[in-house]
Amino acid sequence: MVKIGLLGMGTIGSGVADLLKRNGSLVSKKINIDLVLERVMDRDLSRMRTFGLPEDSITGDPDRVLEDPDIKVVIELIGGLEPARSFVIKALENDKYVVTANKDLMATHGEELLAVARRKKLNVFYEASVGGGIPLIRPLKESLIADRINRLIGIVNGTTNYIFTRMALDQLSLEDALSQAQELGFAEADPSNDIEGRDAAYKLVILAGLAFDSIIEPGRVYLQGISGVTYEDIAYAREIGYVIKLLAIGEKLPEGLALRVHPTLVARDHPLAVVSDEFNAIFIEGDSVGEVMFYGPGAGAKPTATAVLADVVEAARCIKHQCNNDLAEGYFQKTSFVSINDLTSRFYMRFLADDRPGVFAALANAFGDEQVSLDMVIQKKRIGSTAEIVLVTHKVKEEAFQKAFEKIMDLPAIKPKPSMIRLLD
Amino acid sequence: MVKIGLLGMGTIGSGVADLLKRNGSLVSKKINIDLVLERVMDRDLSRMRTFGLPEDSITGDPDRVLEDPDIKVVIELIGGLEPARSFVIKALENDKYVVTANKDLMATHGEELLAVARRKKLNVFYEASVGGGIPLIRPLKESLIADRINRLIGIVNGTTNYIFTRMALDQLSLEDALSQAQELGFAEADPSNDIEGRDAAYKLVILAGLAFDSIIEPGRVYLQGISGVTYEDIAYAREIGYVIKLLAIGEKLPEGLALRVHPTLVARDHPLAVVSDEFNAIFIEGDSVGEVMFYGPGAGAKPTATAVLADVVEAARCIKHQCNNDLAEGYFQKTSFVSINDLTSRFYMRFLADDRPGVFAALANAFGDEQVSLDMVIQKKRIGSTAEIVLVTHKVKEEAFQKAFEKIMDLPAIKPKPSMIRLLD
Repeated sequence: MVKIGLLGMGTIGSGVADLLKRNGSLVSKKINIDLVLERVMDRDLSRMRTFGLPEDSITGDPDRVLEDPDIKVVIELIGGLEPARSFVIKALENDKYVVTANKDLMATHGEELLAVARRKKLNVFYEASVGGGIPLIRPLKESLIADRINRLIGIVNGTTNYIFTRMALDQLSLEDALSQAQELGFAEADPSNDIEGRDAAYKLVILAGLAFDSIIEPGRVYLQGISGVTYEDIAYAREIGYVIKLLAIGEKLPEGLALRVHPTLVARDHPLAVVSDEFNAIFIEGDSVGEVMFYGPGAGAKPTATAVLADVVEAARCIKHQCNNDLAEGYFQKTSFVSINDLTSRFYMRFLADDRPGVFAALANAFGDEQVSLDMVIQKKRIGSTAEIVLVTHKVKEEAFQKAFEKIMDLPAIKPKPSMIRLLD
Repeated sequence: MVKIGLLGMGTIGSGVADLLKRNGSLVSKKINIDLVLERVMDRDLSRMRTFGLPEDSITGDPDRVLEDPDIKVVIELIGGLEPARSFVIKALENDKYVVTANKDLMATHGEELLAVARRKKLNVFYEASVGGGIPLIRPLKESLIADRINRLIGIVNGTTNYIFTRMALDQLSLEDALSQAQELGFAEADPSNDIEGRDAAYKLVILAGLAFDSIIEPGRVYLQGISGVTYEDIAYAREIGYVIKLLAIGEKLPEGLALRVHPTLVARDHPLAVVSDEFNAIFIEGDSVGEVMFYGPGAGAKPTATAVLADVVEAARCIKHQCNNDLAEGYFQKTSFVSINDLTSRFYMRFLADDRPGVFAALANAFGDEQVSLDMVIQKKRIGSTAEIVLVTHKVKEEAFQKAFEKIMDLPAIKPKPSMIRLLD
């Protein structure tokens, strides 16, 4: 028998308790180990009473979980950095395996927590921290262990993917799509972590660490949020054969790792292009395996609970067989990083400009000066005396492009806030 | 150190040896266990010499692998049922873990082999038997262990998927697309196992066993091959918003499991619709996880070798920690099965008929008599005195549909060999 303690009875915590109630005995039979939810901690006791947990198994005191020697697995679902970090360390120090869905924690303190776990011959499992119910961490750690991964491209934020999908299908502005997402529970009241790409960056740190066997700090990820993307951009993208997605991209280049989160034009026939609404997908390019993709619900209590319980099963097996699953993270190496300025991309831009002679020449000169060559030029709409110009460059180094782009923004004929979106190779 | 023996140095065997040479030391470092390819058996010694293996590690005698007490993991890549089955049993009896890519063997004798493994406290790992390099077996066994899976839909045969893709994109007949596939190595000289759906059925047996915790014999799978599908069907399907795929479908119904392999109309916006060329994908619907999909290369030496090596790593960890990975298959139950006749589907049909009065009435009567109602009727092409009629039914029980369909085929005005393809709900 393995006794489990659960910290945090919010949406996901309730989902885990519910899934254990529904399928716990089936799982126990399959693995031949009884899984027992021994104690649940939440500051809000009434929430747990509503859920029908027996009075002696609920508590507001984390130490009744962290210091109970009978509890061998602690599920951390309180979120955030502190006190989650201290609770996880205390659980490990008290000889408990830890299962967490906390991406902020694993992206920020993963190295520290996994080092404590290694010293204690235990482990921290975090399948639920990325991609909700989609199996990702385990396939990266185990199934692809023999391959060298060159690139990882993820749609890992359901909120922004939902927003882009609704903008495209319902011809909505970003603001209207966001309101709709908030009404349906796909976006939080304060959506800035999603909109600005920080949520995706945390997830990229976790996935890229495993894909490239590397120690990565969140600050290494270049970030561009989605707020500059308009419905017009989505419509133009469709016209030239692309959809717009917020991508988290990790690449192994000869000079080091390049990590970035930004809205991206994805060719319509790419497997990631059809990932719609709140769904997530992670596309992996390996030396030997070629291209594989994992697709599914990136959030939600029920899907995420399946990932949490799969990790509990792994922990229970480790306890039964007295063998910690010592794959992957122990081998993580320090690495070098490549700045976004040194990457090469194609760029889509949409400008509004005064429709007068010489504007196009000024644009062309700014690009020409920086050796930025254009692949595509569309000018067909005119609003009063304002012309709408859409340009797509050939491949060009980021630094050269940005110089040209800045020059263009300084042109008096160009209106403020042009769109700038990179293309996926 | 874990010493490995390899049986069968064909395409995949060479891929495994090559991957071990390239990445073996990296993998060994990651798992802290040295993996050593100790001996390779093939009837064709020259093939192994070409590969540069040292003379004392190659042999034509399987017992030099199966009876060597130093070898702890045997990789079976000779394919087919015998002598593969006997070799695997002998390896297990001689206390060796087994890794195999042999779908015929696992679909036909999996229960027997896994029972021997359980008795010996060993295991047989078979990630490479389905979906080449796509992680499937392990996610089913481990990541989704806490969920109840209701349906599994797979594009698991790369040859037929390549053929359908080329038919659609290059407007080819099935015969021409098959020839092209053979030239490019995506189809064998005798493609009947692929074309008639037997290859997909074997893979479905393996996947459905894991998804539904059930003991399944290959004879339980209803089979319809792809040879009746024409370019015209693909074009009509596109016109009404569908693509045609050979699907392997396993469903858990209240009365039991329904297993079938047949060409299927898949709605264009379903994630499986964009799986093109030789790629495979498996779409899973779970009670809690909702919809997840795994996508990647379904065959090929390099991708498949990554799956084989991942299993070798699992075996090596079992050996190091003296714990067999006793998940899943030990819990497999006997189950009941639902005949295709009792399933309910929508059906697409394309008839060529004499273009004369009364034909349509006769068709309508045949359907009406069996309570088959029509959702869609297209008649727009006429070749001489022959009319082409495309029909799509509403949902109807297979048995009623087949009765009506037989009546229609008996009508003198209907030309032989009409098309009949089920739709995916």
